[in-house]
Amino acid sequence: MATTADITAMRRAITLAARGLGATSPNPVVGCVVLDAAGAPAGEGFHRRAGGPHAEIHALRAAGEKARGGTAYVTLEPCDHTGRTGPCSRALLDAGIRRVVYAVADPDPRATGGADTLRAAGVQVERGLLADEAEEGNTAWLTSVRLGRPHVRWKYAATLDGRVAAADATSRWITSAESRADVHRLRAESDAVVIGSGTARADDPQLGVRGVEGAVQPLRVVVDTGATAVRPGARILDPTAPTLIAVAQDAETAHLPQDAVLRLPRAATGPGLDIPALLAALHTRGVRSVLLEGGPVLAGSFVAAGCVDTVVGYLAPVLLGAGPAALADAGITTIAQALRLAVTETVRIGPDLRVTAVPARKGN
Amino acid sequence: MATTADITAMRRAITLAARGLGATSPNPVVGCVVLDAAGAPAGEGFHRRAGGPHAEIHALRAAGEKARGGTAYVTLEPCDHTGRTGPCSRALLDAGIRRVVYAVADPDPRATGGADTLRAAGVQVERGLLADEAEEGNTAWLTSVRLGRPHVRWKYAATLDGRVAAADATSRWITSAESRADVHRLRAESDAVVIGSGTARADDPQLGVRGVEGAVQPLRVVVDTGATAVRPGARILDPTAPTLIAVAQDAETAHLPQDAVLRLPRAATGPGLDIPALLAALHTRGVRSVLLEGGPVLAGSFVAAGCVDTVVGYLAPVLLGAGPAALADAGITTIAQALRLAVTETVRIGPDLRVTAVPARKGN
Repeated sequence: MATTADITAMRRAITLAARGLGATSPNPVVGCVVLDAAGAPAGEGFHRRAGGPHAEIHALRAAGEKARGGTAYVTLEPCDHTGRTGPCSRALLDAGIRRVVYAVADPDPRATGGADTLRAAGVQVERGLLADEAEEGNTAWLTSVRLGRPHVRWKYAATLDGRVAAADATSRWITSAESRADVHRLRAESDAVVIGSGTARADDPQLGVRGVEGAVQPLRVVVDTGATAVRPGARILDPTAPTLIAVAQDAETAHLPQDAVLRLPRAATGPGLDIPALLAALHTRGVRSVLLEGGPVLAGSFVAAGCVDTVVGYLAPVLLGAGPAALADAGITTIAQALRLAVTETVRIGPDLRVTAVPARKGN
Repeated sequence: MATTADITAMRRAITLAARGLGATSPNPVVGCVVLDAAGAPAGEGFHRRAGGPHAEIHALRAAGEKARGGTAYVTLEPCDHTGRTGPCSRALLDAGIRRVVYAVADPDPRATGGADTLRAAGVQVERGLLADEAEEGNTAWLTSVRLGRPHVRWKYAATLDGRVAAADATSRWITSAESRADVHRLRAESDAVVIGSGTARADDPQLGVRGVEGAVQPLRVVVDTGATAVRPGARILDPTAPTLIAVAQDAETAHLPQDAVLRLPRAATGPGLDIPALLAALHTRGVRSVLLEGGPVLAGSFVAAGCVDTVVGYLAPVLLGAGPAALADAGITTIAQALRLAVTETVRIGPDLRVTAVPARKGN
């Protein structure tokens, strides 16, 4: 039976873990809190970046000798393998930790086994405390492990009548400054930001994260099948972050920086590139979370490919009555084929609403 | 300075008033609570239907002799004129009420003056308690007095990407049973329900209120400019409620029941009928609140005419990627012309979201 102190410590560990979002891939985010033998806070930490120390190591270092006889709360099962860092199971034993409480088992076959090692050494090990909350915080990474491709969050900004631009294509600004700032937070949590050729052509976006302290700039990806949308001098080619231009295998790319070109097969049906192939290529590069920023045509391709895991809609209290809709052809022609979602959150962001939803089978 | 007892009594009066929504037009909804001289509840009532006793009369009857020396809380200034019923100011005096607290002044020049009459007779009169809440409850009627036309609430049901039907026109059901039940409550609160020819043709709706106890069936109105959508035997012509078919002055209507035909001028620009003329005709018939149930083309005409006072969107967590949008041509071609609203409420209705918004200048 978990005590209030257990729950408080694990919730703190989950909060700490979230600070690593966008910086730890291909690793998960992990937080750790150590209490001393008397139950007083002794140290805490989180996994800050791939290749750096795991959360447990940060927390044990902060706790020092106070860790002896104490309890460690970890959002993910401590690892048992030696990768770029030593196994955390060993570090916990060396520090004299008497009890380990973790929320979620490690689904990575190379990393699992930490709990068994600890238990064999006489440590009291408990699993599952606040597991749902911890999974929620690690949803991108867990999805990527389960599906072998990055987790995809599709973000759009539309009017109440579902338009992303007016009839004359003007769209600045449908949503508020508060919503746009919130999108920068989503970018900062993501390993890659993906847009289509329409958005690249219309907006020439830079796609960087602004206004989020300590943010790691995500990889910028443009799906530019014919290699006609991104021109030399495009803002997305600036040196502030790496960029990939995904093009068809036969596209003419002499005008593009060659290290940015990613050649992919075309989609078997419909326009554009093969979306699963795109995601596989990003996965190979360590990308575990993608923020899909549209536009409607690319979003339709992702929905049609079954590759949208979370939908985040910023709905502005605005009516237009004309202009493109947020989502274009997703291969759905009748109501029975509609993609049914479950709303997981609704929040006011300034004057706008932010609605988060997940495909119903995954969310319910 | 209002006491807690004052606020409790007035809030109860506002709650009572709302029970009359949809049944009192062309009168407002009004609620009344009477406390005895010691401050104990003595009687309460609300205006139930036009031509019936006002709220004060119901409450005074319930209180009987206990009203003497007591306080009456009324959501609207007591009337001072003799219409189908006697003046409430006189009834309050006759009952021996010592203090009258009302929320909102009566903007109707024929009815105003009650406060002065009571004050002149030595009654302590206070105005403005919970005025915002009381106005909110009477918003349809107050709008109709101010604008000389019915208040219009536009209701739509759409997917997260703003579609009201799939590409093949199928639309049953985008929103949930809970949302559809909620729409019946909106209908019950309205004097008239208005649809366009597209909806009449596609759905052959009956437009009655179902599942709302004690509901008065609203007037059913179809904007059928060419008189081609409503055919003999249409469900909207059943005898459960009155019906109007609004048609152009030159429309051929031999196939329609003649007492249901309302001839109106065509819109000066755009398709369909002149919307202000339609609303004026409904106002003349005592309609103070209209529920506009679409479809997109008619809603566009209302928005273009500046005749939407409240927007109620039922958003289903569903994606379609194709199909008609909730709002068609409203005469808006560029983002600067967009109709900006302010969200006043967001509620989960079953799996759906209900978003209520009002034009920003009115709401902010």
